[in-house]
Formats: sequence, C-alpha cells, structure tokens
Amino acid sequence: MEITTAAIQEAATRIAPHVRHTPILELETAALDVPGRAFPRCRVILKLDFLQPAGTFKIRGAFNLLLSHRPELVIAASGGNFALAIARAADVLGLRAHLFVPDSSPPEKIRRLKESGAEVTVVAGVYRDALATSKEFAATNGGMLAHAYDQPEVVAGAGTCGLEILEQVPGVDTILVAVGGGGLIGGIASAVRNRARVIGVETEGTPTLHAARVAGHPVDVEVGGLALSSLGSTRLGDIPWEAARQWVTDSLLVSDESVREAQRLLWEQCRIVVEPGAATTIAALLSGAYEPSADETIVALLCGANVDPATVA
Amino acid sequence: MEITTAAIQEAATRIAPHVRHTPILELETAALDVPGRAFPRCRVILKLDFLQPAGTFKIRGAFNLLLSHRPELVIAASGGNFALAIARAADVLGLRAHLFVPDSSPPEKIRRLKESGAEVTVVAGVYRDALATSKEFAATNGGMLAHAYDQPEVVAGAGTCGLEILEQVPGVDTILVAVGGGGLIGGIASAVRNRARVIGVETEGTPTLHAARVAGHPVDVEVGGLALSSLGSTRLGDIPWEAARQWVTDSLLVSDESVREAQRLLWEQCRIVVEPGAATTIAALLSGAYEPSADETIVALLCGANVDPATVA
Repeated sequence: MEITTAAIQEAATRIAPHVRHTPILELETAALDVPGRAFPRCRVILKLDFLQPAGTFKIRGAFNLLLSHRPELVIAASGGNFALAIARAADVLGLRAHLFVPDSSPPEKIRRLKESGAEVTVVAGVYRDALATSKEFAATNGGMLAHAYDQPEVVAGAGTCGLEILEQVPGVDTILVAVGGGGLIGGIASAVRNRARVIGVETEGTPTLHAARVAGHPVDVEVGGLALSSLGSTRLGDIPWEAARQWVTDSLLVSDESVREAQRLLWEQCRIVVEPGAATTIAALLSGAYEPSADETIVALLCGANVDPATVA
Repeated sequence: MEITTAAIQEAATRIAPHVRHTPILELETAALDVPGRAFPRCRVILKLDFLQPAGTFKIRGAFNLLLSHRPELVIAASGGNFALAIARAADVLGLRAHLFVPDSSPPEKIRRLKESGAEVTVVAGVYRDALATSKEFAATNGGMLAHAYDQPEVVAGAGTCGLEILEQVPGVDTILVAVGGGGLIGGIASAVRNRARVIGVETEGTPTLHAARVAGHPVDVEVGGLALSSLGSTRLGDIPWEAARQWVTDSLLVSDESVREAQRLLWEQCRIVVEPGAATTIAALLSGAYEPSADETIVALLCGANVDPATVA
C-alpha cells in the first residue's frame, strides 16, 4: 500500500505537540577528508533527529500510531528503539504498553525500557523472535499489536522527518537514510518522492534493502554485527518496499569498522553521540561507499542515539 | 572598554566561514518537573553552541582574534577550552600556537590539546598559574599573547552567539549564560543589551561574577569543584565586567550536584552531552535557582562539550 503525502502531512499535524522539530547542522566537508582522499567540496547537512524524545526518530511513528487509535493496551516487539518510543508515547498519552525485546539488544536499551514504566518481556534471540512472541501474546491477551515498521501509521509518522528535510534544506539533492525494517526510508521516500534522491545505507551485517533490491522483493536475510539492535530486522517490510522500489535510487553497504569511525568522527568534530545504526549515513560518506559530486547538497540523517556514550569516543 | 554592536557584527562577518551557525532546540518544560515541583509552563530553548568546532563557543573569539591579527605565533593560557579553540583556529589558518594549560584540567582536554598540533605546556596549578607562565614565556620569546576572556576581539567573538540568539528566538525574554572569566557573558550582554535579560550562572565553586557584583568590581576568588576547567578563572575580566555591570541583571549560583543532574537530564531527555560548566544553565532551572514566570521565553545556552562522554550518563 502507498503512503500518501496527505497521510504524512496529517501525521505531522497530529504529532506536532509531542515530538520535536529537530534542527540541522552543516558539517564542513574538510572534516570528511581522509589521508589520500580529499572529500569533494559539496554540502553535507546533518539532520539531528536523534534529539527526539526517547532518542530516536521512531517517536514520530509511535505517536502517530497511538494518537490515531488510542488503544487501551499496545503490544510491540522491537530491537529497542521502537519499544522505547512506544513506551514514551504510551506514558505521555496514559496508555498501557507491553513490549517484547530480544536479549541480543544492548543492555543500555533494555535498561531504559525497564525504567520506562511499560511492561517489558525480554525474549531470547533477535528481533524476529521477539516479534513472534509478541504476536502470540496479543492473540491470547488482546491489545493492539503495533508493528515497528510494516504499519501505515508508523511509516507515515517517519515520513514527517522527510517533510522537515525538504523544508529545512531547499535544493537538497540527496538524502542518506539508515535502513533496518525500512520504516524510516519508506516514510522519507513517500514524503520526498522525486524531489530528491533517497539512498539507503545498511551495514554489511543487516542488508535487508540490499537483498530486496537484488531479489526484486523483500527476502529473509541473516543479520548480525554492530548495528543489530537498530537495523536488525531480518526482512524489509512490504509497505516500506512499496515506497523503496519506486523512490529509493540506491542502497549502500558499509562495514562495522566504518560505522565505528563515523561515530568517532561525529564525536570528535561535532560532539554528537549517535548509535551505530544512525552513524551508517556518515560511514557511507567517510568510506567512499557514496561518492558525491561537487556542488551536491546531501542530507545525512542521524536517526538515533540510544547508546552508551562511553562507547563512542 | 565597551564592545560595540558594530564590533560584534564585524566579528560575525569575519568568522562566518570558520564557525557554525549553531541550531536551537526547544525543551518541553515537563522534562524539568521534579517530584513535588511542576516547572512553570514557559518556553525553554536550548542554544546548542557546544556543536561548534573544538566543542566550545570559544572558537568564535579565537577566530575573531586570529583573523584580526594573523600573528606568526599565538600564545595562550587556558583551562582547556580557549586553548582548544586557539589550537583549532591556528591550525586552520596556518599559524603557530603555544598553549599553557593547568594540570588541574581534565585529562580529556589535555589529551585533545596534545593531539591538536600546537605546542602544549602543562603547568602545575589552576588557570591563574598557567596564565602567569604564559606571560613569562611571551615576554622572553615574543609572540602574541591571547587572553582567554579579557581581550576585546575575544569578547566580541563570543558576542556573535548573542546576535544569533536574538535572530533565532524572536521575543526572547531571558538568556542564561555560564560565567567563568566572563568572556561569554560579556559578549552576549554587549550584543543583547536591553533587548532581553542576560543572567549569569556559576557553580558555588567558581563565583567570579557573583563576587564582582557583591564587591562592585572584579575581585579575586578561590575556585574549585566540578566546573573548574571551564569556569575556573579566579577573577572576572575587566572588559566583561564593563558589559556585565550595565546589562547583566542577575547572577545565580548552583551546586556541583545540580550540575551533575543537569548533565544527566540533557542526556536522558535530549541525548546531548555537555561539560559541567555548560550544564550550569540547566542546573539553574532544575534547582530552582532561576524561577521563570509562565509565558516567559528563556534561552539556556549550552556552550561546551569537552568532556569524556562516559561521565555524563
């Protein structure tokens, strides 16, 4: 199904009282020079969506979903960030939440969830396992099952970030977006359409979009590595795919090592702390996975910071 | 001597190619509620100047000074931040720098300085001791001595942050600014004058403005505690005092404990890492040292993030 511009605009109005209109920051391209390679003298603009409540863009979709339905009980599975966002939104709106998180998630995320006031069940395995358990629970106990990315309200909510980018960066040529289940890039692509190139970035260990583009449709992939907790869904969502196949022009893979370098660069150059999944967009620039042309205006979306800050410096 | 509006506007033009126009972020006042005290429903806007190159607002004054004189060798003493800014600016402009830093500065700042490419001399003691040593060095060896806050170009450079606040937050009522030697508040006050209240915040261990206001002029104070490296000058500068006595309406003291709480709040609510000196402005709100009225629009300046991020969470 297609996420319409109207749905994204309605989401923006709906969630405005509860989320932040996050700022942008231009990064001097000299900061991206590496020995032996001068970075092209284009423009690189960071969209600081990690400044959102709950430290993740997912607060956008969480509020859009819960405000649209106001369920008595919301049930969600998540590698951590969607659960954190649902917990926060449910708390603000006075709704109950029961969250299922895999034990492969970082202790930092599990700690935050347990402090959130929501019911939390830690499930052995990865995101897929938590999702299966949450579905069984919902079938038995009732409650609204909230999908972390393959749900229209969630994708439309994420799309509001795309509207902000278009407004904040007139003339943007290219938007780099991290991809896990695809909710973020699906929303951004649905908002942006042909007004800029939207390019996905994944780690080599979490290549859902890459695999979908090769196969021509979403397929199951094995996942692992540094970005597992934020990008570690095993298959791109169908709703995100519908947008991605129309409006996403490329997908790039980056190594865990380049993600670590990107995290360090963001701290050293900007005093910005982000989680590995979010740093993939900078890793694509730093590693050469994306090679901009001179005069290109690039937005690198920084979408989350649920990480132990001790790990970035 | 007075820092004129024209001098600050000229500084803004001069440094624009080298510094960042840092963004603002509105913080929901509910984030400042504490058990038993609901925070007034005013507006609290964070000015994110810690996002500057070198992680400190001091890059503004450093570039204004070095671009104004382009000395072959610049000599400066600093608790860390001014030295980092001078090192960065000198490197960008191809100038030599020799920096004197007290051994009481955090290892994080000393490490960064040693990596900066500048000559670094670590001096036993506090800022005052480093300053004395730097003056001796300059008298013997030549070079331009750059004062961290009692120098017109440095104060005018800091004032450019005030111009940005006026432009970014129309209708601002109150600006909270951390005070050490006073370069930042002197610059902000010179830029803002009577267009908003400018209020200084210091830790109890670094009360230079507080003591100057009590005495009616800058006086020597004993300094210590958590914010020593960024706010730890022992006496307010004469140039800052000239602005502060005219346009700074109050000075507030906060405890080290409230600064730690403010650092935690900024991380938990915004995924922002700042150093203790910068967190004083939020500490003033959180502790009740500053009690806003409803409908007031407050800017809390966050001026630096040269801190080990492991220490804030």
